[in-house]
Amino acid sequence: MRRKGLASMAVHTASTSADPSGTTDSRVDLGPAAALSCRECGERIPLGPHFACTACFGPLEIAYELPDGDPEGLRKRIEAGPNNIWRYAELLPVPAGVADTPNLNPGFTKLVRAENLARELGVTGELHIKDDSGNPTHSFKDRVVAIAVQAARAFGFTTLSCSSTGNLAGAVGAAAARAGLRSCVFIPHDLEQGKVVMAAVYGGELVGIEGNYDDVNRFCSELIGDPIGENWGFVNVNLRPYYAEGSKTLAYEICEQLGWRLPDQLVVPIASGSQLTKIDKGLRELIALGLVEDRPYKIFGAQAEGCSPVSQAYKNGHDVVRPVRPSTIAKSLAIGNPADGPYVLDIARRTGGAVEDVNDEQVVDAIKLLARTEGIFAETAGGVTVGVTRKLIESGALDPTLTTVVLNTGDGLKTLDAVAPTSQATAIIRPNLDSFREAGLA
Amino acid sequence: MRRKGLASMAVHTASTSADPSGTTDSRVDLGPAAALSCRECGERIPLGPHFACTACFGPLEIAYELPDGDPEGLRKRIEAGPNNIWRYAELLPVPAGVADTPNLNPGFTKLVRAENLARELGVTGELHIKDDSGNPTHSFKDRVVAIAVQAARAFGFTTLSCSSTGNLAGAVGAAAARAGLRSCVFIPHDLEQGKVVMAAVYGGELVGIEGNYDDVNRFCSELIGDPIGENWGFVNVNLRPYYAEGSKTLAYEICEQLGWRLPDQLVVPIASGSQLTKIDKGLRELIALGLVEDRPYKIFGAQAEGCSPVSQAYKNGHDVVRPVRPSTIAKSLAIGNPADGPYVLDIARRTGGAVEDVNDEQVVDAIKLLARTEGIFAETAGGVTVGVTRKLIESGALDPTLTTVVLNTGDGLKTLDAVAPTSQATAIIRPNLDSFREAGLA
Ligand SMILES: [Zn+2]
Ligand SMILES: [Zn+2]
Repeated sequence: MRRKGLASMAVHTASTSADPSGTTDSRVDLGPAAALSCRECGERIPLGPHFACTACFGPLEIAYELPDGDPEGLRKRIEAGPNNIWRYAELLPVPAGVADTPNLNPGFTKLVRAENLARELGVTGELHIKDDSGNPTHSFKDRVVAIAVQAARAFGFTTLSCSSTGNLAGAVGAAAARAGLRSCVFIPHDLEQGKVVMAAVYGGELVGIEGNYDDVNRFCSELIGDPIGENWGFVNVNLRPYYAEGSKTLAYEICEQLGWRLPDQLVVPIASGSQLTKIDKGLRELIALGLVEDRPYKIFGAQAEGCSPVSQAYKNGHDVVRPVRPSTIAKSLAIGNPADGPYVLDIARRTGGAVEDVNDEQVVDAIKLLARTEGIFAETAGGVTVGVTRKLIESGALDPTLTTVVLNTGDGLKTLDAVAPTSQATAIIRPNLDSFREAGLA
Repeated sequence: MRRKGLASMAVHTASTSADPSGTTDSRVDLGPAAALSCRECGERIPLGPHFACTACFGPLEIAYELPDGDPEGLRKRIEAGPNNIWRYAELLPVPAGVADTPNLNPGFTKLVRAENLARELGVTGELHIKDDSGNPTHSFKDRVVAIAVQAARAFGFTTLSCSSTGNLAGAVGAAAARAGLRSCVFIPHDLEQGKVVMAAVYGGELVGIEGNYDDVNRFCSELIGDPIGENWGFVNVNLRPYYAEGSKTLAYEICEQLGWRLPDQLVVPIASGSQLTKIDKGLRELIALGLVEDRPYKIFGAQAEGCSPVSQAYKNGHDVVRPVRPSTIAKSLAIGNPADGPYVLDIARRTGGAVEDVNDEQVVDAIKLLARTEGIFAETAGGVTVGVTRKLIESGALDPTLTTVVLNTGDGLKTLDAVAPTSQATAIIRPNLDSFREAGLA
């Protein structure tokens, strides 16, 4: 079902000799990560730069041997840890000394109690915004890339790479620079100038591909299979199982910041769907570890109407997600064929959540609503989650009397064009009081 | 010498009755802030929305009654406090319960150990970047505005205002939104579109003034003297003594993050010069409180060549700063007549530091140097400090064997134009391996 032939590809590593069986030997130290495990058939294979099951070509994820039996001790160690994702190193596929290696130290971003927004939306319970615009390159991508960097090191890769249309390019460029890795990032050649600059400034190779994002991805797959790509770690391809785990830290942080408590409801954006599935995984881990009380939570998925294949499948009661051609201002969510769509549907249905979408006008309104109530300027993806939250409250799907956490995964500075037409000066006046009075602002 | 007639202006407050003597009564609770004190003649007046001495028109600053006698207890209380500037509430002009009021909770930004940059600059001691791009609106202005908001509340102001050409407008808009205050911000009418959007999105009044920044300031002074402005707090005018104190938190954080240790050398940008003087004040307070060992430190000021009146005065051995007309890409530092220039000269000379400047090309080079070595994308002001650091090392003024902290006060996303011409894709290729090989990147 997926990129057959790439799944079991061997990679030469610095710390271990090349392994013709296509696995990496067990001396790889990625902390509690024990193996790769197939999400479809459960097959386990040793840790290595693989992303598809050797038996069924299903997607791989990390299987852990997590700390056991002493939740109070674990909680204390976490709370004594650094103010970034490495406080959860015992629960992530990273070596124990990770916090001491040069990296961007993302995470532990603010959980903002949004009382002004709650009033506007008629929420009487607790409403919080998990604001990932505070990350080093101002999106949640810093979390996932930071984990991928550790995997790249463990496997002896010397070049960090990705295909990207925006946030990821800058996150990879910055992380590689700080970690002392070479980077080579691939983007469509006609990307907006601002995004090109944000990706290029870190000094890595930035290659424009004459074609669209699909062409970029196809080219990257070709490169991974070629000897040129032998020492390359593509964060969202051959390092994807590691990379994806970074989103678990959002779940950990939200619960810790709520005082080691599960929220009743979460509203999470859907691009590939990976983030939502990993947040669910993180919450279930915290329950299993005894760090939070085991009680129900609901996860709601949020899409933009112009790219809403998961929302459409949810509403139609389908298990299969039909690909679409994206057309929305929420470009960081514009994945027409979301790989984790079916898993998202499972989670929304299992937890009693839902998947909903809003149109571009509602996205812009929601960005401005969040800005004027809480002083948080969100990327379009944040407009999608806040807009969907409002819609879910109006429809009765989301209970306004409970504790709700809404994710903002990026920064409004990166998508200024979305709000520019309607965010302008209130008035232009001459520099005197009469002119000010005439403008009706006194 | 300064705006005579505005200094002692009375303001109607919510919590206290109007006071025709031009002072505010002692029931104002701003924590350890005891009075306003003249930096020229030492005259003390009660806390109120005043910025110039009633005796000599010199600038006012906050005089404190700081906690005494138990440095270990104070240090423990600070370390147990929130991860933002309110951990230092006992040392700031804010009420004790400040952390519980809705605000943007700025500060406690990363102090990044910059080993890659150190290697490039030939620094063998510790080199750190204090990276204030991690603040809520991505500049250090969030710190100073947060203190001004508390003063505005204490004095019963209902509108938060400022004159601005960039970062400050957004910081005030965001802080007012979150605090539930009205905001009305004044900018030159021909400001770049991006900056207008960043300021307007928070939904406050944003007024473009037909004129330049000087015209905007003149208009604001007129407004403060008029009944219209009666309940208005201008963060950088009538609330300036409170506002300015926010920069002390940079000194506190740097020392705490170094393990309660003074750095040997600091490199600080100069706009009005206020930030540098307050960092020095903060360091001296920490010494007086017994929180750090009393030993020498040197403060270096950094300007852009196109607006370097303090640097010129320093080099010429003058005590007086001659105003200039700014012309530099470092717009957030482009104050041609820096109010605190003479104090900056005093501090540089007293501590054994210096004041230096770099040209625009060196600013751009330094932004890119910091980005490619540490993954930190700085605003032009950060290019100025990093560029000046390099120049000071080359001239021997800065000792590369000691512990040095360089400030980055803002985010590169806000000044993309500075690096855009030289930050572009490395290559544009067709989506195939041959084309990639031809580009010489394999
Ligand atoms: Zn399988
Ligand atoms: Zn005086």
